[in-house]
Amino acid sequence: MKTIAVLLSGCGVFDGTEIHESVLTLLALAKAGVNYQCFAPNIEQMHVVNHLSGEVTANETRNVLVESARVARGEVLNVTELDVSQFDALIVPGGFGAAKNLSNFATNGSDCQVSPDVETFLCEFALAAKPVGYMCIAPMMLPRIYQNIQATIGNDTETAHAFNEMGGNHCEASVADIVVDEANKVVTTPAYMLATNIAEANIGIEKLVNKVIEMTV
Amino acid sequence: MKTIAVLLSGCGVFDGTEIHESVLTLLALAKAGVNYQCFAPNIEQMHVVNHLSGEVTANETRNVLVESARVARGEVLNVTELDVSQFDALIVPGGFGAAKNLSNFATNGSDCQVSPDVETFLCEFALAAKPVGYMCIAPMMLPRIYQNIQATIGNDTETAHAFNEMGGNHCEASVADIVVDEANKVVTTPAYMLATNIAEANIGIEKLVNKVIEMTV
Repeated sequence: MKTIAVLLSGCGVFDGTEIHESVLTLLALAKAGVNYQCFAPNIEQMHVVNHLSGEVTANETRNVLVESARVARGEVLNVTELDVSQFDALIVPGGFGAAKNLSNFATNGSDCQVSPDVETFLCEFALAAKPVGYMCIAPMMLPRIYQNIQATIGNDTETAHAFNEMGGNHCEASVADIVVDEANKVVTTPAYMLATNIAEANIGIEKLVNKVIEMTV
Repeated sequence: MKTIAVLLSGCGVFDGTEIHESVLTLLALAKAGVNYQCFAPNIEQMHVVNHLSGEVTANETRNVLVESARVARGEVLNVTELDVSQFDALIVPGGFGAAKNLSNFATNGSDCQVSPDVETFLCEFALAAKPVGYMCIAPMMLPRIYQNIQATIGNDTETAHAFNEMGGNHCEASVADIVVDEANKVVTTPAYMLATNIAEANIGIEKLVNKVIEMTV
């Protein structure tokens, strides 16, 4: 039975993992009969956002690994515990956590860096040439991990421009599309960069998950 | 177009709404072409549980409405804002939040009370004779709202006994089953009371959602 790693970045679209994207990923994996193991970095979140008001909560800190455990029902490992030989592939859902916790794209744009433990984790899959799927804003980390990467973040001109400035080749895509970089074994889909509801997001996410599974053979 | 209310109780299985159950509910509603509006009470959580360690975090408080906004991507209303005439039905996902925040079943067992604003909210749907779906541990609130209620929480003997002590009629059910109380227009399913993975949980949840929608005609 195949096992696929899922990298989380907290719990909530504005300061962590996009919850719908991560749950839809887990559902698509389970429906396909594939095991999964969630991972997250053991670091503090960039900040805590009150998801009702949209405002940053002053003087509150939360840990990315601890909050990710909410999405994973307690079953989450620190990214430093990865043994890549035990996994067939990796999927990275989006949410601002990918741009605030896994990397600093939210503040640094095309000058961004991937968080050190996360970079090591992502590079392990790249070096092992195992297929990966990145969705929503998470593909902004790809040019830091792969050479000549083709991927999509949807159709936002400014974000696509930053992706190309980082050395990537951005491909415009709709919410129901996936973009496949066969050479790098990287699949991407816009998800909530474009989705107007959860059923729309699910179409691209299910396609991405099934394509990643297909590429593990 | 139909609109269905979804009652949340925080964000995380051990101190709030079960995240998978709530997202799978939203997915099933959207796939069926139904609008939804999330609600939650504006009260403090009973406590905050570190979902990685399973332990209660001392000296931390979180608000049920604010945390529920994470599941709802910001779009959640206080239960006191309900205009029941605008809704065709209600669905209540589970998680310990139903037994810790929406009611005090976790501490008081069969002597439990439903939180005042939540009780008013739930009774509005009962008085209007609109169909409702409760899953996982959430059905433990039903005997406080409905007379002669038939429902399931799965097959846990102690919990089923408490349900009957409160005046309900418990029906044993498997994870893929729904129990329908036609007279009260109440549908229940065990979800993560029994599910061993997310795909299993999805079977009963999808059935519950579709049955509730069918009963709105």
